Amino acid sequence: MHHLLGTLVALLVATKLLGALAQRFGQPAVLGELVAGVLLGGSLLGVLDPTEPVLHALSELGVLVLLFEIGLETDLRALVRVGGAATTVALVGVALPCALGYAASIALGLSPIAATVAAASLSATSIGISARVLSDLGQLETPEGQIVLGAAVLDDVVGLVILAVVGAAAAGVGVGVGMVARTALVAAGFIAGALVLGRLVVPPLFGLLARVRAPGTLVALGLALAFAMAWLAEGAGSATIIGAFAAGLVLHETPQREEVEHAVTTVGHLIVPVFFAAVGASVDVRTLADPRTLAVGAALVATGVAGKFAAGYAPVWFRGRKALIGAAMIPRGEVGLIFAQAGLASRVLSPALFSAVAMMVLATTFLAPPLLARIVETAGPPNDEARPGDGGVDDLVFGEEGATD
Amino acid sequence: MHHLLGTLVALLVATKLLGALAQRFGQPAVLGELVAGVLLGGSLLGVLDPTEPVLHALSELGVLVLLFEIGLETDLRALVRVGGAATTVALVGVALPCALGYAASIALGLSPIAATVAAASLSATSIGISARVLSDLGQLETPEGQIVLGAAVLDDVVGLVILAVVGAAAAGVGVGVGMVARTALVAAGFIAGALVLGRLVVPPLFGLLARVRAPGTLVALGLALAFAMAWLAEGAGSATIIGAFAAGLVLHETPQREEVEHAVTTVGHLIVPVFFAAVGASVDVRTLADPRTLAVGAALVATGVAGKFAAGYAPVWFRGRKALIGAAMIPRGEVGLIFAQAGLASRVLSPALFSAVAMMVLATTFLAPPLLARIVETAGPPNDEARPGDGGVDDLVFGEEGATD
Repeated sequence: MHHLLGTLVALLVATKLLGALAQRFGQPAVLGELVAGVLLGGSLLGVLDPTEPVLHALSELGVLVLLFEIGLETDLRALVRVGGAATTVALVGVALPCALGYAASIALGLSPIAATVAAASLSATSIGISARVLSDLGQLETPEGQIVLGAAVLDDVVGLVILAVVGAAAAGVGVGVGMVARTALVAAGFIAGALVLGRLVVPPLFGLLARVRAPGTLVALGLALAFAMAWLAEGAGSATIIGAFAAGLVLHETPQREEVEHAVTTVGHLIVPVFFAAVGASVDVRTLADPRTLAVGAALVATGVAGKFAAGYAPVWFRGRKALIGAAMIPRGEVGLIFAQAGLASRVLSPALFSAVAMMVLATTFLAPPLLARIVETAGPPNDEARPGDGGVDDLVFGEEGATD
Repeated sequence: MHHLLGTLVALLVATKLLGALAQRFGQPAVLGELVAGVLLGGSLLGVLDPTEPVLHALSELGVLVLLFEIGLETDLRALVRVGGAATTVALVGVALPCALGYAASIALGLSPIAATVAAASLSATSIGISARVLSDLGQLETPEGQIVLGAAVLDDVVGLVILAVVGAAAAGVGVGVGMVARTALVAAGFIAGALVLGRLVVPPLFGLLARVRAPGTLVALGLALAFAMAWLAEGAGSATIIGAFAAGLVLHETPQREEVEHAVTTVGHLIVPVFFAAVGASVDVRTLADPRTLAVGAALVATGVAGKFAAGYAPVWFRGRKALIGAAMIPRGEVGLIFAQAGLASRVLSPALFSAVAMMVLATTFLAPPLLARIVETAGPPNDEARPGDGGVDDLVFGEEGATD
């Protein structure tokens, strides 16, 4: 316990100070938290051992809280209505980097399963990072910003499904078309089923609970729902994070969402950095001296940036600033790191390959903010034809439909 | 991890639902949380194993968060000014139950060290429970209410010092006057030193940090301070909870207190019940069938109630409702449970004696709310001579001085 307290102090102080430092330089806080983990990890200071049982459990709970938070913030219905452009950007933005990344990884001599995990880690844009950077630049409520948000949510869902498939494959289950389809269906069906059941059962239940009014009850039971659905998702052969994400989507529909979201965010400030720091601490900086690791890392960065940037141009009918969309899709974050960590835990990724994936996440996240700032500066204000009428929510949601020829 | 998730879901749901149920029947939530732990524990449902490493760590962090919270809410300077009556009630309220409890325990055949731990668990009134019940009855801001609050804070500090002494003794260090004095001095000196240093170093530091404004920074660093001071306190030969309590006292002085307190309370709603449930789960209900356990438990309840109630009459010069003070001092809670748990962990208390102490905590907590409601009903409104003038803060603080002859 004495040792754990010391580690937690170092972890909290280092992630918060380096997170604040990153923000000072116009970078998202998660970058600082990752770097804090690298510094505290076994290959440098040796303070943080991510395999220690209590820290490992806290880090796993941290990623569940993070996905629960993202789910709470996600309005699936509004995003379904965005339709067209966002879906196109999302699907091309998953397929292109994965295909390019897989080809490059195979060319560099990786095994098919390792290449699959490395390529899959390129699939999902970080909602958190992209939304934060766009908001900092005042571009979140433009049509381009809304397309990026919608696409980031969709590719997260697709990415989580891919993770479940890859996870099953890594666990040694034979990979065939039938198995891929089944795993994808379980994950997607879990979200869909949770939404349908959740819309029937949870709102009246939480309406009742809201009448209890003992402080903290609602939040504790919200978190219990997230853990319970994570537990169920894992039991059903999917990933725990799918369950936590689905729990957030379910609670998004209730009038108690704001109270739950506020408290979960507070808890998240404390426990989510444990996950990022643990990921950072898993990076063995010595492997970065290996030319092959550097080559794989560079290939992942190149294919990851090129693939997502090109996806911004996929909705050819959209007459907005496509470069802005493409650049905003570049940063990878939590889902990419979850892939990397799952790959390391199941030994599909060697420590060196894990470091290459972590390098890709760090590089794409570093790259996006200055690139976006530059594009906003040179591309000027939003295209008049692309801009929705009065800026209301419906206009924002349907804005890109209006811009469709 | 799968098993841990299931346990956490059961723990969160059971503590919150039974906590709400307890409140429904006019009882404090902590009672429901304890009962939830007993139900989930090894002797009944067998869902919750408090010795499992991750749950044990969460429960230890929970008690640190609780003491940090209590420290944050404690205005030591105001309480020092209350002086007279509160100090008298506190000291008599520690000495009398401890002496009676020790004598009864020895008479029932306990070893001197076990009798000491059992008696010491009678020392501290639960600030949280007493404040909550008085507030529910609209008596918190009366002179009697203020005396109870002051006395409860003082006997917590005294109780924590006793815990450090008893802890050292239980660890096999020879107990002599010198050793008791040294341990008491380390604990008291830790709080005093932390306050002096804390008033010089922490406010400017947190003033600086408040300018960072990255969300969650202040809270994470507040909690880091609590863990760091807990780590230091343990290193200095005192108890971790003394450090966490001192950290709360230090931050009470800063303008950032409210923000930290709000967030820590949110976190506390989730992690503190883990501690209470773990304590409940350590109760082996089968030991309550043992006549000797029941006899010791009954003796502790009797001496615990009589000693604290009599302490309400100790400030003979105070012309208020002394029965109200005495009854409000009866509930034991967190500190009593911390004693019991420390005694169990160090094997000074057998599982049967641990259950007897837990029985005392449950009984005193059950007893106080109805007793207080009855006293308030029969004793009428506060004595005019005891009531402070305009009800302002200074009047509340000095109210009992004004009532002094």
